[in-house]
Parts: sequence; structure tokens; C-alpha cells
Amino acid sequence: MKIGKHELKISGTDKNLLSATQKRLDFLTKPLSSLGRLEEIAKTVVAISGKKNPVLNNKVIFTMAGDHGIAREGVSAYPMEVTPQMVLNFLNGGAGINVIARHVGAKVIIVDMGVNYDFKGIKGLVDKKIGMGTKSFTSGPAMTREDALKSIEAGIDVVFIEKELDIIGTGDMGIGNTSPSAAITSIYTGKAVKEVTGRGTGIDDKGLANKIALIEKGIAVNKPDRRDAIDVLSKVGGFEIGGLAGVILGGAMRKVPVVIDGFISTAAALIAVGIEPKAGEYIIASHNSVENGHKFALEHLKLKPILNLELRLGEGTGAALSMSIIEAAVKILNEMATFESAGVSNK
Amino acid sequence: MKIGKHELKISGTDKNLLSATQKRLDFLTKPLSSLGRLEEIAKTVVAISGKKNPVLNNKVIFTMAGDHGIAREGVSAYPMEVTPQMVLNFLNGGAGINVIARHVGAKVIIVDMGVNYDFKGIKGLVDKKIGMGTKSFTSGPAMTREDALKSIEAGIDVVFIEKELDIIGTGDMGIGNTSPSAAITSIYTGKAVKEVTGRGTGIDDKGLANKIALIEKGIAVNKPDRRDAIDVLSKVGGFEIGGLAGVILGGAMRKVPVVIDGFISTAAALIAVGIEPKAGEYIIASHNSVENGHKFALEHLKLKPILNLELRLGEGTGAALSMSIIEAAVKILNEMATFESAGVSNK
Repeated sequence: MKIGKHELKISGTDKNLLSATQKRLDFLTKPLSSLGRLEEIAKTVVAISGKKNPVLNNKVIFTMAGDHGIAREGVSAYPMEVTPQMVLNFLNGGAGINVIARHVGAKVIIVDMGVNYDFKGIKGLVDKKIGMGTKSFTSGPAMTREDALKSIEAGIDVVFIEKELDIIGTGDMGIGNTSPSAAITSIYTGKAVKEVTGRGTGIDDKGLANKIALIEKGIAVNKPDRRDAIDVLSKVGGFEIGGLAGVILGGAMRKVPVVIDGFISTAAALIAVGIEPKAGEYIIASHNSVENGHKFALEHLKLKPILNLELRLGEGTGAALSMSIIEAAVKILNEMATFESAGVSNK
Repeated sequence: MKIGKHELKISGTDKNLLSATQKRLDFLTKPLSSLGRLEEIAKTVVAISGKKNPVLNNKVIFTMAGDHGIAREGVSAYPMEVTPQMVLNFLNGGAGINVIARHVGAKVIIVDMGVNYDFKGIKGLVDKKIGMGTKSFTSGPAMTREDALKSIEAGIDVVFIEKELDIIGTGDMGIGNTSPSAAITSIYTGKAVKEVTGRGTGIDDKGLANKIALIEKGIAVNKPDRRDAIDVLSKVGGFEIGGLAGVILGGAMRKVPVVIDGFISTAAALIAVGIEPKAGEYIIASHNSVENGHKFALEHLKLKPILNLELRLGEGTGAALSMSIIEAAVKILNEMATFESAGVSNK
């Protein structure tokens, strides 16, 4: 299958390496399996990378921004102008994702997928703008099928721009983007809209009821076909969600683990896995968001998050935080002494 | 109250700083409370340190080792000789705690609190040896009351040796030490021994039944008085557990957050808080161990762990891992832009 210029060649991860890796973990100076999920994570990274001793020096967070027509209908606690303002904040290094990415030693790449603002070629911003925000999906498709494909292609593009890349994190910025994410989650998981819709950046009860009604209407009007992920993306998605789906596919094509952030990134993962189920094997879930629908989306993808810190900021903050845990897991595999090398008695 | 040469001066944390800190967090460019537990953690560190902008550059893990008479009665999957072997592994940098501490930028200080081995003044090991392991508490006290006090004093000592110290992690090594930890946990929480006793490094069903019976016997024989934490420590504790209780008290005296590791460190926290309840305000729980009794001990201390990664290695590995999250939380407070400084529209 092709997405724009990219041939989607994604093979499954190398599961043959799993048992050999567990055997190596069992020789390390610790009780069997006593590092719990760190051991699982180390094995996952080995299988994804195909490397017995993966090293995660080059950590990159792709934070993709886009605007949403539905934001004009009162689904968010913040005005649409916050999307470009936050993009500028990212470029200045002052946002949450900048702080956490610096902390874990990750680079942040900010991509304009479709912000309703003319950045005039500002330095540091990757320009993949598809349009000045999507249309509201309450009365028709959010974007054309062509633009949906373009957004995914752009996401794959940015992954291939990076020469050195050992692990990817995904992040989002887009006022209103929990609405398309809830729509996508409802469509794939089969859960009712009200079960997967939350308060986003902090709307009140009335706002929440309005948001649920609008999403229900959008699904009813557009009738997205869940067997066709491009159809779902074009009808109720967003440009940054398409971009993130592309990042996930690009990571899988490059055999690099993709650490997804919260609800929006996970909606993008539903699209990516809808396009190519094998891409799911390259995804690591970073955290369990406060946003209601997130747990259902993760369950559907059979992913177990690493952290549960009640985050709901997005931007890639949860992905960046969990990269530190993932890197620790891999270092355990690479750096710990064995019973034999350390002269420690085994059971 | 005095413990050896140390006057136990511990005042409560500075709760006056909490609301001002939340106000500052609310000015940062993120939806209100969207960083969830990171915001709570940042506030906790502010209140503990008494500093508006705490910086956690100097991270130190105290990993304390001791042997246990009860280990000769089949309570562990590993032989007692593993305790000194692992101490040597720590000194060589090959153990789990070394790998994770390096990863998060923490220094590891290894303390011999009472290992059944003559280390002959080996370089790098802090010698606070109280004895060649405790006696089995199944037929009488594990140690004298005097030695219990000495072990706590030694723990406070090592905290005061470090000049630059912004955050402490605790860790343990001692074959058999989940048995005294289960005894202490049962005594303080009121839970039955069988509810708080687990498989430690990996004993089978028969071993577990034997372990439970021995701990029950030890409590019946010694009748520890839970209103007297020194009595509990001396009768069913361990030298490294006393040392860790001292580290916690020392951290509280110095107004430094003490990140406790798993089950053994939390048993030490029960002792420390039994001695001085205000010490509890200086404790941050790092993770939720697989070992059954841990959650009850944490509940009793009203502590909510940061990570849940199914760890059960000890050594301070969970504490070190969570230090990275705690440091991220503090950096959020120190480094993020405000709505005003970044020119972002607030609600």
C-alpha cells in the first residue's frame, strides 16, 4: 500500500528475540523477573528494533499542531488562538513539553500540520500545513480524503527527515482536538460517545453536554466507515491527528519504537493501526490520561500504559516522561552484571 | 528526643507554601491542574524543602545492607552469602541500582549495616556494621534495644556526612529481609501476617507457608509493643531496616525529601514514623511493589506511590526511577513559561 510517495512496508517485530532476551535478563544479578515491567519494556524495544542491545541515545518528540473547526462551537475551555500561541511557546522552549524533553534528553520537533495562523516561515517550525484548520465535522467532513492522505504522508515525511533516531515520542497541540479524538475512539471501540468524551482542557457540565451532542451529530452526519481508516480520519479527524498517524507508521517503517502520549496520540494510533495493523507492534503507551476515552482506546489497541500520573496536558509530555523509564529498561539489559560476571550465587 | 548523639528536631513541612505554589502552577502555560500528580509532587517538594524553587541536583541513594538470622530458616530463595556478594556488585557498579542511579544522575552510597561478612575496609563501602547479621527473631529478639538505637543513629549519621543533598532515595539489600518487613507491617497495620507476607525473591508455596508460620511465631514469642518503635525494630527488625529508618529521620531533620523504595524501605518508614510522626511528611513513595504487604504499609502511612511497574528488586531501584519523575515535576515549576510571559490567552 502507498501513502503518497511512501510505500507502507511494515513487517512485524522480531519476536524471535523475545525468549533470548528474557534468558539474558534472567542471568542478570537480580531475582527472576524482579524488574517487572522494565523487563517487558526492554524485550519490546529489542523486538521492535531488531537489536539485541538497543541504545536509545536519539530521542525525538514530534509535537504536531492543527486547528479544528469544531472549536468554534464551544467544545473547548480555551479560544482557538491558543493553538498558534502555544506553537510559539514551544519554539521558545517555555512549554511543558520543552521542560520535560530537556529533562529526559529528547529533541522536540514542532510541526505545523494545519494551524489557523500564518507563521511566515518562522525558524524552527516544520511547515507541513495542510490548511488553516479543519472544517467543523458537525455538518460535513472535517477534511477531504486527499487532505487526510496528505496529512499522513507529511507525518511519515518528518520521521524520515531525522537521520539519527532511536525512539520516537508523539505529541499534539490543537484547541478542540479531544472532540475528533473522542469521535475516532467511539468509532473504533464501539463505545457510546458519552463514554469516551471528557472535559478536555476543562469545560463545565453544560459544555460537556454540548460537546457530546456535537460529536454524536458529527458521526451521524458523516457516517464514517471504520473499515476505512482514511475515511474516518477525513470525516471526523484532524490534520495533526493524521500527521501523528503518519509518525506512527513512519516509526514502524523504520523499526523505531513509537511512544504515544495521551488521548489524541492514541486516536492517531487507532487510525495508524486501522491502516496497517502491524504498526501496532511498534507502539508503546506512555501513560493513562485523565480523559475518559483514553483507557478504551488503549484497551482496543491492547496497550498497557507505563505511567499513571493523572496527566491531561498533551504536547507529548507523557511520552517524554516515560522515555526515561524506557531508557532505564534498556540500560538494565545493556549494563547490568550477570551472576557469573559478578560472582553472585544463583538460586 | 535523642537518638545517640542526634537530637531529633523535626518540624512539620511548610504547608503555607502550598497554596502560593499552586497559584504559580496555575499561571503556567497549561490547562489548570493538567499536569496532575506532577503538580502535587512539585508542591510536596516545595513544602518539604521550604524553598519556592527547589532544585534537585544532588540526588543520593542510600543502599543499606544487613543479614538476617531468619534467613537460615528457609525464608528466602537465595542463600545468605548473596548479601555480601551483592554488596561487592554494588561497589563494582554492576547491580540494578547502579544502572538506574547512573541513568537518573544519582550517587549511590552503600552502607554495611550488619552484613555477615568481613569486608576488610574495602574502598567505597561505608562501614556502620552493628553485627554479623541479626539473630533469628523466631526464638527471641533480632537484636538488643541498644543495637536498634545504634542502627538508627548510624542512618542519621550517613545523611549528615553528605554535604550537598537535595533529595534522598532509600534502598536495601539483605537476604531474608522481607520477613522482618512483613512482621513490622503486620504489627503497625494490624493486618494478619499471611496478608502482608509475599514470596520475596521467589519462594514456592511450601516456602511461603513456612515463612508465614515463622513470622507469626516470631511476633508471638517477642510480643513487640507497637507504641514503642524501637521495641518493634529490636524484636523483629533488621540492622539495615534500622539504618533506613535513620536515613528517613535524618532526611526530615535536614528538610530533604526522602523517596522510599519498596517493601523494606516502607517497613523502615513505619519505624521512623513510629518514632517521630512528623517524619512522615518528608516521605515520598516511589512505587507499588509486587510484595503483598507493601500496599498496606503505604496506606497506613497515607502515601500514594508514583510508579506501578511491578518491581520487587529493592536496592533503591524504584526510588531512583521515580527521582526522574520528581525532578521533572520540580523543573515544571521552575522552567515553564507563564501565560503572561509567553503571550498565551488564558481562559
